[in-house]
Amino acid sequence: MLIRHLSIIGVGLIGGSLARALKKAKLVEHVTGCNRSEDTMKRALKLGVIDDYSKNISQAVKGADVVVIGTPLSVSEKILPNIAESVSTKTIITDVGSVKGGIVNAARESLANKFCNFVPGHPIAGTEKNGVEYSFEDLFVNHRVILTPLKETSPDAYKLISEMWESVGAEVIDLDVQYHDEVLAATSHLPHMLAYALVDCLAGMQERDEIFKYAAGGFADFTRIASSNPEMWHDICFSNRDALVQTLNIFSEHIDQLKVAINKSNSNELLKIFRRAKEARDKFNKEENDKI
Amino acid sequence: MLIRHLSIIGVGLIGGSLARALKKAKLVEHVTGCNRSEDTMKRALKLGVIDDYSKNISQAVKGADVVVIGTPLSVSEKILPNIAESVSTKTIITDVGSVKGGIVNAARESLANKFCNFVPGHPIAGTEKNGVEYSFEDLFVNHRVILTPLKETSPDAYKLISEMWESVGAEVIDLDVQYHDEVLAATSHLPHMLAYALVDCLAGMQERDEIFKYAAGGFADFTRIASSNPEMWHDICFSNRDALVQTLNIFSEHIDQLKVAINKSNSNELLKIFRRAKEARDKFNKEENDKI
Repeated sequence: MLIRHLSIIGVGLIGGSLARALKKAKLVEHVTGCNRSEDTMKRALKLGVIDDYSKNISQAVKGADVVVIGTPLSVSEKILPNIAESVSTKTIITDVGSVKGGIVNAARESLANKFCNFVPGHPIAGTEKNGVEYSFEDLFVNHRVILTPLKETSPDAYKLISEMWESVGAEVIDLDVQYHDEVLAATSHLPHMLAYALVDCLAGMQERDEIFKYAAGGFADFTRIASSNPEMWHDICFSNRDALVQTLNIFSEHIDQLKVAINKSNSNELLKIFRRAKEARDKFNKEENDKI
Repeated sequence: MLIRHLSIIGVGLIGGSLARALKKAKLVEHVTGCNRSEDTMKRALKLGVIDDYSKNISQAVKGADVVVIGTPLSVSEKILPNIAESVSTKTIITDVGSVKGGIVNAARESLANKFCNFVPGHPIAGTEKNGVEYSFEDLFVNHRVILTPLKETSPDAYKLISEMWESVGAEVIDLDVQYHDEVLAATSHLPHMLAYALVDCLAGMQERDEIFKYAAGGFADFTRIASSNPEMWHDICFSNRDALVQTLNIFSEHIDQLKVAINKSNSNELLKIFRRAKEARDKFNKEENDKI
């Protein structure tokens, strides 16, 4: 048994899927859930994702060997003091947030002498659907989980969290906190901004009804992530503001390059950009396929 | 038998799939292919997509009842005079180009008194894969085909092309030429520009290897269309320059709105944009699902 007592604060797609996967692998004995909404907890209990629950964070983490923080980023930072005062000095704490800078700073302050037991994490998995009802045990299979351990992080805490993710099929990778946030701004946060902006842009056009009517398959794929949770992405934007704004600026320059090439009938420049992008995308595709 | 002799100029994904579908439905007796590359024609012949071929356009369209122009936009306009002088006054001509303004103007001039037999068309179908080897008979099932008939267009010609598309499973819709180009700039051309720009932007970043390594599922979906044919999209950009540049400008304003909201910590504004986009995207999704 890897974990005797697991507490999940924020039982959603990620936390729920983790609990399901650990239970299936018989690597956890008891899962306690904690959510703002009692309805969600009842649903999670009925689905067999958790074994019991409490609306009270202190209650929920009491006696836990591992606490997984699966709440939205803005909530995670606020509940850290609450967790800090209720866990033992042996309890290992991890999170699943998409931005690491803010939570690491908040944890360093709130957890104080228990900060060594905090292992910041970010599973690169998920769908545009949120909520425990969409959770499934194979969510992490063949996905990467990034951990961003600090110099203070206890090797034992790191080892347990790393084993936990590997045992549910994920590949664990270590990154520096700031580097993580910069890379994710480009690979994940920027595409979400583009999808939201694109759909909002089209929805605001005069021809909006026709526009969505004539949208082809590529459009559906391209904009699926615009169905993602607005509150979650709101938090991500503010948590990773600097890296995201910088990335948006670089992207805007690329759009301007395209516009200039089109306006000036610069065939060579336009073809160069498209070919370079196609080459990079085809390479990415090949690597993804090789992985499988 | 709907069509006795069909000539396809440019046997690629679209032309090849149309030939396969019509053959399967026993709606065509004989298909002649015409391509710049003899290799492609040999492949198409071997795949049973065409029955014979000629590298010479005049030869390929001689005696045809229907000519389908499936070449890239820049080629289509150039070969119209060649087609015009070789077809009979009864031959019906259609095309499958993604932009309609340019080809309609070129056809009006080149086809002269045969212009009434030209039915401009645009099947909203395709994948990021090009070439006859990727063609398949069900490509058009449950897809829309937009026709943009002119006041000069013969009702008989329109009727035949409309029946042809419906018989391979497509839903035929009529649009005005200019309106088609404006709507497609938004639904198709803009998303392709964003995908190309995004991949090129990321590929140019210092952390490029890491960036593609940590890209998640959403990224794969979002950028798939950046694998599309660069030459084809080069032609589309120039054919639909005005509508595309205008659409790119509107999109840039939406990106700027996001940047301002993030920079100014304007929670309400950011949530408003995300929620509006999610609502529009969810509605689109529901309508797509209802369609199936």
